[in-house]
Amino acid sequence: MIQRPRGTRDFAPKEMESRRELEAAFRSVAERHGFREIATPIFEHAELFTLKSGPNVIEEMYAFEDKGGRQIALRPELTAPAMRFFVNDLTNYPRPLKIYYFGQCFRYERPQSGRYREFFQFGAELIGAPTPESDAEVIGLAAAMIRTCGLTEHQIRVGHIGILRSMLKEAGVPPEQAPFILQKLDKKVYEEARPLMQQAGMSDASIEQVIRVTETTGGIDVLDSFPGEATDYLREVFGILEAYGFTNVKADLGVVRGLDYYTGIVFEIDAPKLGAEKQVCGGGSYSLTELFGGEKVFSTGFAIGFDRVLLALEREGVSAKEHKVEAYVIPVSDAMRHQAHVITASLRNAGISADVDLMRRSIGKNFKYADAIGARFAVIVGEKEMAERSIALRDLSSGEQILVKVEALTEEVKRRREVGVRVRCGGEN
Amino acid sequence: MIQRPRGTRDFAPKEMESRRELEAAFRSVAERHGFREIATPIFEHAELFTLKSGPNVIEEMYAFEDKGGRQIALRPELTAPAMRFFVNDLTNYPRPLKIYYFGQCFRYERPQSGRYREFFQFGAELIGAPTPESDAEVIGLAAAMIRTCGLTEHQIRVGHIGILRSMLKEAGVPPEQAPFILQKLDKKVYEEARPLMQQAGMSDASIEQVIRVTETTGGIDVLDSFPGEATDYLREVFGILEAYGFTNVKADLGVVRGLDYYTGIVFEIDAPKLGAEKQVCGGGSYSLTELFGGEKVFSTGFAIGFDRVLLALEREGVSAKEHKVEAYVIPVSDAMRHQAHVITASLRNAGISADVDLMRRSIGKNFKYADAIGARFAVIVGEKEMAERSIALRDLSSGEQILVKVEALTEEVKRRREVGVRVRCGGEN
Repeated sequence: MIQRPRGTRDFAPKEMESRRELEAAFRSVAERHGFREIATPIFEHAELFTLKSGPNVIEEMYAFEDKGGRQIALRPELTAPAMRFFVNDLTNYPRPLKIYYFGQCFRYERPQSGRYREFFQFGAELIGAPTPESDAEVIGLAAAMIRTCGLTEHQIRVGHIGILRSMLKEAGVPPEQAPFILQKLDKKVYEEARPLMQQAGMSDASIEQVIRVTETTGGIDVLDSFPGEATDYLREVFGILEAYGFTNVKADLGVVRGLDYYTGIVFEIDAPKLGAEKQVCGGGSYSLTELFGGEKVFSTGFAIGFDRVLLALEREGVSAKEHKVEAYVIPVSDAMRHQAHVITASLRNAGISADVDLMRRSIGKNFKYADAIGARFAVIVGEKEMAERSIALRDLSSGEQILVKVEALTEEVKRRREVGVRVRCGGEN
Repeated sequence: MIQRPRGTRDFAPKEMESRRELEAAFRSVAERHGFREIATPIFEHAELFTLKSGPNVIEEMYAFEDKGGRQIALRPELTAPAMRFFVNDLTNYPRPLKIYYFGQCFRYERPQSGRYREFFQFGAELIGAPTPESDAEVIGLAAAMIRTCGLTEHQIRVGHIGILRSMLKEAGVPPEQAPFILQKLDKKVYEEARPLMQQAGMSDASIEQVIRVTETTGGIDVLDSFPGEATDYLREVFGILEAYGFTNVKADLGVVRGLDYYTGIVFEIDAPKLGAEKQVCGGGSYSLTELFGGEKVFSTGFAIGFDRVLLALEREGVSAKEHKVEAYVIPVSDAMRHQAHVITASLRNAGISADVDLMRRSIGKNFKYADAIGARFAVIVGEKEMAERSIALRDLSSGEQILVKVEALTEEVKRRREVGVRVRCGGEN
């Protein structure tokens, strides 16, 4: 047997329906917030990602040479492609430009629980508006998505990269060394951050002050200890989030996100049920366009780890409805096959999910199959009944069976299926 | 500027909405027919595709070695991955198993009009039932998809590979030479097919008879000239398609599809508006599972060229509704910003797509932006009005403006948007 490549997954119908339901919920929330979808290719020139994340990222990417000798990489994330698209083709759109996207990303690493070589991200970018309103809008979108999808237990933590950056600067850390320190602080590995700060010439007092900042978390009032522009800005963001109805947002100055291109607010959402790999969303305000050859434009965006949210929902016992067949049509004899097909078509044309015996099976075997695929109703096409334009409709969950006129069948199925009907479209909550 | 890789595309919001609308229509039809979605990875072991299509396919694939030295390929099509998934994990599902899938495929060739290196396929497979009913079900699904998406001009042509195969066999063509002849007949390059048939020892009369078969197309009665098992089978398939309501299907014995694994019926759908590259769907009954290490299982399936259907719809002037913002909220002063955010949240929570000034713009500039993004309504939050819990609602298409109570705003927007409302979910037609 040929196996699928290591670290990748196939999705069976039940899983796919669960994934599509979450996707539809996210999509619906994004559109209600005025974001519109874009899409970019599965692979890009590798340079796009090394420009954004440094040459080391090559090690973690599926990178290869195409037949024309160009370095190509399967995309490891979606922000760089989205901003490349913006710089190339979307700069004439009205700003702020609000976009979202959903798709596969790839990383080459040892497969482990909850981390795959092919994984899915849902993200959004608000391009062109460096204001507290924009930042709150983006955090609010992420928060609304997580709330709407039904993940009860989650924490939203918002910080500002400017607070630590200015402290490091005031303590005399050379600009080129700051990112390395911030990366260690981001991961809270103080035993590695401390020597780096000492080497950068920081005093012990400054070092402890910096560490105290990264441990500062709580309500908005924790910001009082660190007065300045950045905390004033954060207060404005929190005020707007409150107007939007999000009162569950925490300040957390330990949210650092080590990369250079972040310019202001940074935020993360955790699902504690996931344990060590609890982060389901990360984002912040940044500027990347000038790296890709465009003018400098400020953006705020985030990426949601789609697979992790699904896993967290599963741990909370939230599951999606399966899209099982509603009506399974059974001809009682060969003479009834033609009628069975006509009836199946009429059900389908009326928007009912319908199936019909395709194997010329006996009635008993057909009932077994209807049961196996979880059909809601059996529609039994019998000779005696059809002579009177009637048809037997059996509810396979209750066992109740009635006779209905052929002309009334679709309405009867529609009426009866309302009990326990499933919602297939992103609703309004 | 960094360009996207050659032969790939980015999709802007308007294009994405058009693509998602078509996808939703296809998805809805497939589910009404009792098919459920599966998904497989973007890349596979290259062997999967060479087993199915021969070693030459490597030339046309994005194939590369991963860091573990394994030959990997971006999938050139989706049938082989689906059948690999079936053999690995789905053999215990009740049969027939009805699955569909949608996603990117990749081919390495010179980019040209309507052909991309990254393209999209929507396909379905019915696994496990070698009956005329199964074949008709699959052809009917493809036909219903093309009809439902609104493509008026299209032709469905159904043939049976068994007719030509048995003629070649009777004419003494060695089994290993038949595929090469069939490939030439498939493309109707008779000047290349003739010498191959002569070399295979066929008489001139047999050769002309074979060519006559490939030119046979028309109503079901054209089959009368070629009596036998295969034509009897085709007649049964046509009878079921008629019961399903598809009377626009033609017999075409020139549908050959050169590959070895096809076992019976073969069919194609064309959109004549597309000219030379008019084929939008191709399929047939086949057996692949034993190639991938499983037991022999008969299937019938097809793939729709998603990009080509979109192009054909475009040529017919069919376009999708854009998902523009419904209500754009404008605070008349800084003091009204908080209220504007509260109102925006209430609109969104009621399922209305709403946006709000994020740039602290003047009222005039806000109206310009609302116009630029195509918002349907402007919601103007004024101090005097808010003192009386009222708000101005302006219809930006008619210019009409009314005052409504804050509490009545969402209902008023919902009532007024019904005129010209867009359908976002796959409907029932």
